[in-house]
Amino acid sequence: MEQVKVILADNEIPRQWYNILPDMPTPMHPPLHPGTGKPVEPQDLAAVFPMNLIEQEVSTQSWIDIPEAVLEKYLLWRPTPLCRARNFEKLLDAPVKIYYKNEGVSAPGSHKPNTAIPQAYYNKVFGIRRISTETGAGQWGSALSMACRMFGLQCRVFMVRISYDQKPYRRMMMSTWGAECIPSPSDFTRAGRRILSDDPESPGSLGIAISEAIEDAVGDENARYSLGSVLNHVLLHQTIIGLEAHRQFEKIGEYPDVVMGCAGGGSNFAGLSLPFVRDKIHGREVSIIAAEPASCPTLTRGPFAYDFGDTAMTTPLLPMYTLGHGFIPASIHAGGLRYHGMAPIVSHLVKEGIVQAQAYDQIETFTAGLKWAQSEGFIPAPETNHVIAAVVREAELARQEGKEKVILFNWSGHGIIDLPAYDAFLSGKLTQHALTDEEIREALKSIEGYPKP
Amino acid sequence: MEQVKVILADNEIPRQWYNILPDMPTPMHPPLHPGTGKPVEPQDLAAVFPMNLIEQEVSTQSWIDIPEAVLEKYLLWRPTPLCRARNFEKLLDAPVKIYYKNEGVSAPGSHKPNTAIPQAYYNKVFGIRRISTETGAGQWGSALSMACRMFGLQCRVFMVRISYDQKPYRRMMMSTWGAECIPSPSDFTRAGRRILSDDPESPGSLGIAISEAIEDAVGDENARYSLGSVLNHVLLHQTIIGLEAHRQFEKIGEYPDVVMGCAGGGSNFAGLSLPFVRDKIHGREVSIIAAEPASCPTLTRGPFAYDFGDTAMTTPLLPMYTLGHGFIPASIHAGGLRYHGMAPIVSHLVKEGIVQAQAYDQIETFTAGLKWAQSEGFIPAPETNHVIAAVVREAELARQEGKEKVILFNWSGHGIIDLPAYDAFLSGKLTQHALTDEEIREALKSIEGYPKP
Repeated sequence: MEQVKVILADNEIPRQWYNILPDMPTPMHPPLHPGTGKPVEPQDLAAVFPMNLIEQEVSTQSWIDIPEAVLEKYLLWRPTPLCRARNFEKLLDAPVKIYYKNEGVSAPGSHKPNTAIPQAYYNKVFGIRRISTETGAGQWGSALSMACRMFGLQCRVFMVRISYDQKPYRRMMMSTWGAECIPSPSDFTRAGRRILSDDPESPGSLGIAISEAIEDAVGDENARYSLGSVLNHVLLHQTIIGLEAHRQFEKIGEYPDVVMGCAGGGSNFAGLSLPFVRDKIHGREVSIIAAEPASCPTLTRGPFAYDFGDTAMTTPLLPMYTLGHGFIPASIHAGGLRYHGMAPIVSHLVKEGIVQAQAYDQIETFTAGLKWAQSEGFIPAPETNHVIAAVVREAELARQEGKEKVILFNWSGHGIIDLPAYDAFLSGKLTQHALTDEEIREALKSIEGYPKP
Repeated sequence: MEQVKVILADNEIPRQWYNILPDMPTPMHPPLHPGTGKPVEPQDLAAVFPMNLIEQEVSTQSWIDIPEAVLEKYLLWRPTPLCRARNFEKLLDAPVKIYYKNEGVSAPGSHKPNTAIPQAYYNKVFGIRRISTETGAGQWGSALSMACRMFGLQCRVFMVRISYDQKPYRRMMMSTWGAECIPSPSDFTRAGRRILSDDPESPGSLGIAISEAIEDAVGDENARYSLGSVLNHVLLHQTIIGLEAHRQFEKIGEYPDVVMGCAGGGSNFAGLSLPFVRDKIHGREVSIIAAEPASCPTLTRGPFAYDFGDTAMTTPLLPMYTLGHGFIPASIHAGGLRYHGMAPIVSHLVKEGIVQAQAYDQIETFTAGLKWAQSEGFIPAPETNHVIAAVVREAELARQEGKEKVILFNWSGHGIIDLPAYDAFLSGKLTQHALTDEEIREALKSIEGYPKP
């Protein structure tokens, strides 16, 4: 009987998050105010986020203490196990050891509560009573709902109407945790009413939902807005994943040759990989690979440019790989990866050649995910299937090279609420959505004439 | 920061299951052949179950080795954490420490794979190629689907048609693991065709589905039938839960005053409690409580009698608390607790006064389950809500008595696929279903004139 799980006791949980900013080999470009073209000042964001989170966003401290109240909630499901996928290895029959960090064990079923909990906490201590946010597929909305309930905050989630109708289980999860979940566009906001007056049957979009949530937060001095990915402080909170994995590898005296994650906004990928990026910056040899959808190939086919974080152009201009804020990705099942841009931290690392990116089409990802479910048991989220496809490709490469490799990847969440996607795959109804060059040129028109980083 | 999880390393997993039969203070009554009225012989069951499982069913060995191949699969999610519910304790504000065994961390989300894995394994080594079973809500069918896939067996699940239509996610889960899921009644079997010819729109019942699965297995020499609860060998496999919990309590130098589980067929309850029942039989003071639904109050209001295990009267007569095999429980959301009888082992322990039973109505259970979800995060299955309601009552008792207590209970599964039940509860649509004495007298007519134990 071989050990397959590397576990940490409660008292071995990391007490600090890791901030990569001071370790960056070259300085990052600052976010710009879209009106003035000047770098954004913390005060510019004060109506949107509480100041303690804004301070984290721009912090240059390498290590930031995790508050006791946050640790207490983390312990409900953390430290998460580092597991060796022996059954999947046997299936692939390649010279690889595959380890994965199981982030599906949280109550909402993904890595999202790693930042939802501290965001709710910091809003609470700053005196905020209500948080407003948007959600697409619902992973983020449900994680924030749970976190708000735990800290006694009200939570309002604007959920893209088509998802609200198609994914009722996520909405029910939010209600169970006491949040108010509103299909967007709604008549709660000017932005929503404007859309509805043009098209009462609008299916909504993430862009519209973000506009509604920001407007709702900014219009109430007791409320703030919250974002589930992309920003520095969100990635900071997610480093708990990689810091745990780092300790777990120390325990077994191993170190990964390859560290992988799927990437939409970038938070689960960065959460696992940044502590290993740190090692790489300090000279250690390790490949770090982000897997994105071929239908939304931000890192592999987009330019590094200044762009808005949202479709409605209400955020600062962020320096990132982007397909343009006007780009609407195909409706693949991996809703969490349908984002036109990418976290500035991840973008900067790709630009510097520290992180590599690969794109995978939907059929390849579900083929890999089904193999996983049938060997390891756990059914992965459609997002997670992207990194599993990357693991399959990496194993194949190791076989061809005849080279033994240790792979570590982030199993970002389970797919139980996404079972209809597997049903579609099994009945041959899934489609592929690789973009043409022409479509990408068209999409990029929305950022023509913007400042260049 | 206080420790809230007690974990076991992979190499601390128990290597044997615990068989309570030799420790029973009085001998159990034997199952009877319904035709002859004589005790059933192993050979009578040979067309239904593989002989190695029949041997386990009647074994008088106290400890039975867990095969290596089973341990290897158990390690995918076991040992499960023993968690202290600090947030729920704070909410209840009573002098209790509440520990729970989290069986929701398995891939299908419940304790069911603890027996699905060994059942698939023993069928495999006996040379069986296909397993047939029935499922109501789908927890059992999905666990067996996964287990069969892992050991390369075919799996056919007859799923009660109304559940098949109402719970598509469970069906999709079974397909994802490669099983064939057939709505019952079906035209695969004589039993099914007979029902369909009378009523082409029949919604089905567990009784019909069992008849179909047994007929399907018995008619194919390469196939056998499998049951997810009630029988001795099923409870045996589930003792892994309580054996782990026992070790976990040793690690922290504590011992529970009360051990609790919800009880439908009895397997999750027995799985946690039997190792503690063993201590109790050997003189240790510990209360052991089974929580059942008020709408299906087998242990609290049924007689101890001989009855069929299924509605279609195809099984041996089992000595158990029963409401009569003709009893059809109200369609509460805790589908896993809608069983007219109770495992003979659990029934015997209740009869001997070693285990106590309590009944809870649906509203009380969801009220408790919602409190749990909003404090501890994890959303419990409707079945699990019954034991959480019992914990709430026990905590209230401790407050009234001013007595400190350590409570241990089995968190048998998560409720993510049951979110529509929470939705109904939150929108005030859940009903109560306490039975009248008259209804119980009526139900018991189906066992009038049967042999008495």
